[in-house]
Amino acid sequence: MRFFSDNAAPVSDAVLAAMAAANAADAAYDGDALSCRLDDAFSDLFETRVAALWVATGTAANSLALGALCPPWRGVVCHRDAHINNDEAGAPEFFTHGAKLMPADGAGAKLMPEAIAAVIDLIADDVHRVQPAAISITNATEYGLVYTPDEVAAIGALARARGLGLHMDGARFANAVASVGCAPADVTWRAGVDVLSFGFVKNGGMSAEALVFFRPELAAEVAIRRKRAGHLLSKGRYLAAQIHALLADDLWLAHGRAANDAAARIARGAGAARLVHPVQANEIFVRLSEAEAAALRAQGFGFHDWAPGEARFVTSWNQAEGEVDALAAALAAL
Amino acid sequence: MRFFSDNAAPVSDAVLAAMAAANAADAAYDGDALSCRLDDAFSDLFETRVAALWVATGTAANSLALGALCPPWRGVVCHRDAHINNDEAGAPEFFTHGAKLMPADGAGAKLMPEAIAAVIDLIADDVHRVQPAAISITNATEYGLVYTPDEVAAIGALARARGLGLHMDGARFANAVASVGCAPADVTWRAGVDVLSFGFVKNGGMSAEALVFFRPELAAEVAIRRKRAGHLLSKGRYLAAQIHALLADDLWLAHGRAANDAAARIARGAGAARLVHPVQANEIFVRLSEAEAAALRAQGFGFHDWAPGEARFVTSWNQAEGEVDALAAALAAL
Amino acid sequence: MRFFSDNAAPVSDAVLAAMAAANAADAAYDGDALSCRLDDAFSDLFETRVAALWVATGTAANSLALGALCPPWRGVVCHRDAHINNDEAGAPEFFTHGAKLMPADGAGAKLMPEAIAAVIDLIADDVHRVQPAAISITNATEYGLVYTPDEVAAIGALARARGLGLHMDGARFANAVASVGCAPADVTWRAGVDVLSFGFVKNGGMSAEALVFFRPELAAEVAIRRKRAGHLLSKGRYLAAQIHALLADDLWLAHGRAANDAAARIARGAGAARLVHPVQANEIFVRLSEAEAAALRAQGFGFHDWAPGEARFVTSWNQAEGEVDALAAALAAL
Amino acid sequence: MRFFSDNAAPVSDAVLAAMAAANAADAAYDGDALSCRLDDAFSDLFETRVAALWVATGTAANSLALGALCPPWRGVVCHRDAHINNDEAGAPEFFTHGAKLMPADGAGAKLMPEAIAAVIDLIADDVHRVQPAAISITNATEYGLVYTPDEVAAIGALARARGLGLHMDGARFANAVASVGCAPADVTWRAGVDVLSFGFVKNGGMSAEALVFFRPELAAEVAIRRKRAGHLLSKGRYLAAQIHALLADDLWLAHGRAANDAAARIARGAGAARLVHPVQANEIFVRLSEAEAAALRAQGFGFHDWAPGEARFVTSWNQAEGEVDALAAALAAL
Repeated sequence: MRFFSDNAAPVSDAVLAAMAAANAADAAYDGDALSCRLDDAFSDLFETRVAALWVATGTAANSLALGALCPPWRGVVCHRDAHINNDEAGAPEFFTHGAKLMPADGAGAKLMPEAIAAVIDLIADDVHRVQPAAISITNATEYGLVYTPDEVAAIGALARARGLGLHMDGARFANAVASVGCAPADVTWRAGVDVLSFGFVKNGGMSAEALVFFRPELAAEVAIRRKRAGHLLSKGRYLAAQIHALLADDLWLAHGRAANDAAARIARGAGAARLVHPVQANEIFVRLSEAEAAALRAQGFGFHDWAPGEARFVTSWNQAEGEVDALAAALAAL
Repeated sequence: MRFFSDNAAPVSDAVLAAMAAANAADAAYDGDALSCRLDDAFSDLFETRVAALWVATGTAANSLALGALCPPWRGVVCHRDAHINNDEAGAPEFFTHGAKLMPADGAGAKLMPEAIAAVIDLIADDVHRVQPAAISITNATEYGLVYTPDEVAAIGALARARGLGLHMDGARFANAVASVGCAPADVTWRAGVDVLSFGFVKNGGMSAEALVFFRPELAAEVAIRRKRAGHLLSKGRYLAAQIHALLADDLWLAHGRAANDAAARIARGAGAARLVHPVQANEIFVRLSEAEAAALRAQGFGFHDWAPGEARFVTSWNQAEGEVDALAAALAAL
Repeated sequence: MRFFSDNAAPVSDAVLAAMAAANAADAAYDGDALSCRLDDAFSDLFETRVAALWVATGTAANSLALGALCPPWRGVVCHRDAHINNDEAGAPEFFTHGAKLMPADGAGAKLMPEAIAAVIDLIADDVHRVQPAAISITNATEYGLVYTPDEVAAIGALARARGLGLHMDGARFANAVASVGCAPADVTWRAGVDVLSFGFVKNGGMSAEALVFFRPELAAEVAIRRKRAGHLLSKGRYLAAQIHALLADDLWLAHGRAANDAAARIARGAGAARLVHPVQANEIFVRLSEAEAAALRAQGFGFHDWAPGEARFVTSWNQAEGEVDALAAALAAL
Repeated sequence: MRFFSDNAAPVSDAVLAAMAAANAADAAYDGDALSCRLDDAFSDLFETRVAALWVATGTAANSLALGALCPPWRGVVCHRDAHINNDEAGAPEFFTHGAKLMPADGAGAKLMPEAIAAVIDLIADDVHRVQPAAISITNATEYGLVYTPDEVAAIGALARARGLGLHMDGARFANAVASVGCAPADVTWRAGVDVLSFGFVKNGGMSAEALVFFRPELAAEVAIRRKRAGHLLSKGRYLAAQIHALLADDLWLAHGRAANDAAARIARGAGAARLVHPVQANEIFVRLSEAEAAALRAQGFGFHDWAPGEARFVTSWNQAEGEVDALAAALAAL
């Protein structure tokens, strides 16, 4: 029973079918019909004109976005525990040619305007200090918290006031939107987000993430930099097909909702006292003694030892109900 | 009738089936069973112990390889018309952090030791000049020529004598090996190649190329740099599956042979006088007047206007026999 | 009365005289007689065979050193308040092509092995995390503390145990050595330092710092990278001349001692209660109310408002005795 | 008798005196009075409002200029034999983060619009090809040719028509202006030059070159990148002093004229038949057999063996008349 990572889950049948359906010769790179329809598909979803690019990984999406918002000699404010700071092997530094990540603090890996301002206010405005150029937030956060539209808007207002770009790492955007129940637009461009990394791989996709530019004029340069980074696949139609399959009939949202529901049931089983963070999306961080962790593993549950006395469980879009119930019960029984 | 590019061809059923078969949850990234078996699979094929990494594009494979062989402050000798010099948007410069490509000349985009030495010999050995660190050759070349094992070995000897690494861009390695009829080992490590970009996407794959390290100690650093470049896919098993499917029963070679045979038939149809380069793999460069090109297009043939009076036709692994015969006949009839 | 920065002080007459004496035509770049004698001069000083390179700024010295010790995809542990982290505009990231600075804590900007280990121990050993490659310490620190040979040796032992390089930013190396009273070798290579940025500009020089390699085999690559960074001056003999003038008869040490002595007198005037940090070199951090700061400025003292309620005074190699006494008295009188 | 390089010549007394006169404490970095007056001084010289920055080397000046005109993913058209392409160890690639130099041909290392257009016209406008962003010309060229204002203007017009920036490497700008006899403005901004590297080191300076921005809005970013590259000297006033000394009373121009006159006399001595290139500035390329070269060396002349059968002589701002006459006579006597 796999609660280790949503990265390890299968691909949805709809996605596989769409990929198979794309298996006729077409134009190479992103000149095919499916790729060319991405701008429209995302513009519909976000209720405004956007430009969109597919890439194969969230790391590439994030790093290309940051490269578009931050020159080599400036910095990006992000949470200390953000994926871009901790789990991408320095990809943001690589793609930006050495920009500096500027870590800020906040409970549950969630950034608030005060924490961001505290980082920026310390930076004297002279050539000796690296100046910030952008803010990056993760929604849902590394610890499964989500931002309301108002919370993002407050950060967006700060970004505008300071002349900074705003990026959202939405590796689990589906879980975040499903959790808050808002329109995708509300938590992105209406709240000041310039570029969104819209994740599909953790949510039933295979190898396609989207970069969504709410300032569409940014996309042309990123398209060049995507090629320069080796991220322009020659058979791009199979990536576009994945995205279209998940956007159709809001399948992405249904998947996100399913994973969230599973997590909520597990959280209820665990009981509030065990939870390290509120469970708002599809991650459950639980206080576990070593013996308890061993007992759960003995029952067949796979999960991540996050820190001493703390374990992470992640539910996937297709998590079997029986597994969810079993884990909830096992946690309740501890 | 598509002779525009082997990049636009479909994916083979065997590959699609292998991907579907990989659709059970497994470890993320490259910790899955299929990815872990790649070293063995390529070691068997190359009759020596190698290390292998999958990536999604040939550009990424080439650039990661060059990064492993060349520090930022040195250079890579390659043909002036090489893909790495002309068609990868500066990816080699990006991945190497600014190494210099050092173009050499040669008929049919094929490098000979004399041409390489001519470039190197001009470079004074002081700190003012960028010093070479590696040689990169393309097999089959941009113009469809192939290297014999002896030809590669001569370059390998030069590389060793000058202390340079040797990379082979094998985007069409299958066509090259099928053409020469040698063992894959003969034209690679036995001839002094350090790293091979082994292409599958043009040859029936979807989104998987392999980096094969004949000096396996190079792979660990490249694995880090692959992640740093956003090229470590979280569901890597679907890439490994593609490669295993094409390696099984030498399907890769059968595909390469099929494309080559189609090209040979078209070349015979065109007649030697029309051929700009000898046809040794799956590309046919043909002298065509504007009127002739228009006439062929009117008959439904799609191809690339390479240069004034010159067109490029590329055959794919699954090129329909009828299309091939039709093109051969049409060219003969001009 | 200038206590703002040792960067603003004049150049010593000995240095100016040596530069004038170098004003005959000689070989360009670093092929001149003075440049060629640097290795010997520093080898004598450090009682071991070293290689040395001149550069024009401490930022260049530090960044070239870090580039030699850390590849683009790894990191450098340093104090959060280190010059390389805060005051060099991202030069370390530029020269290393995007390596990550990994800030550690410690009173007075001084690193202790425990603090370094605490940073490293959090870094999981996988491709997702940037791995450390080096440690950089500053001696004297940003707040004027100095390291004893034993303290450096403890860090050196940690570095060796973890396979990390060790760099010392010695922008105020003279003040540090003068303060501790040890041999230069004791606090550098004998304690495990691999590369030293040996500062002369703050200490009576004009535009010459030295990079001293205790692993001389590192110097050849850095010589290339120095040129590539535009730091190989064509009339290098004027830089070498500065260094030789300051090394001669240990003038560098006399200068450092003079500045330290001035600082000690000012510290005594201020009284221990006012001192934010122990005064061990040539910087005095003093608690000052706004009114007190204004009063001192009204008396003609120039200094830096470091933080609310805190001011920094820096003494220079040639600080006039009268100015020192006046400041000591003024602080005592507050 | 040194005709090896103008890089090896002494520093003029006026420069040394100005440096000594700057030896009072002042603000650090470029906040001092001399540095602050540079914009005005160059604005006067160029008869328009410019922004200027000092740096210590021509390589740094060129590379910072190119970084301002060209993003990492584009390219700079320059002559194949340009200093930036051949003699700066890849510094342009370093400072631009991997932009591509795009070599064009032309007699005497001089670029003409046709040659530039020929390079650009071959570059298909798609994401696979590196697109040009700037043109860089060298005046005087590597082979001592100079551009007339009309010639630069033709390149400037091409640059504007193609949307490219235009940089002039003026390491020997003094020799070029002295040779043509135009106003400095005529051959720079009036002809479309955006940024000039204005060399002083080869012309009586010690360690100061100027970056002159005819689009002053470019300077702020370059000031940041100068610091980031370790090129902001903390005692910058000594660099500014050098520049002011050479600008005063057009000393720079007198020096350039002197070197040119010496070269002209040597060229006359050599006779037109021996000259590889017309002698328009301070370099003389002469056809010499090995025996002749040896004979000249035996007479005490130092020079550079440029290529088989070809030697380079460079005159300096202070070349002694006797040396010049001796060389002219010796060449005439061959």
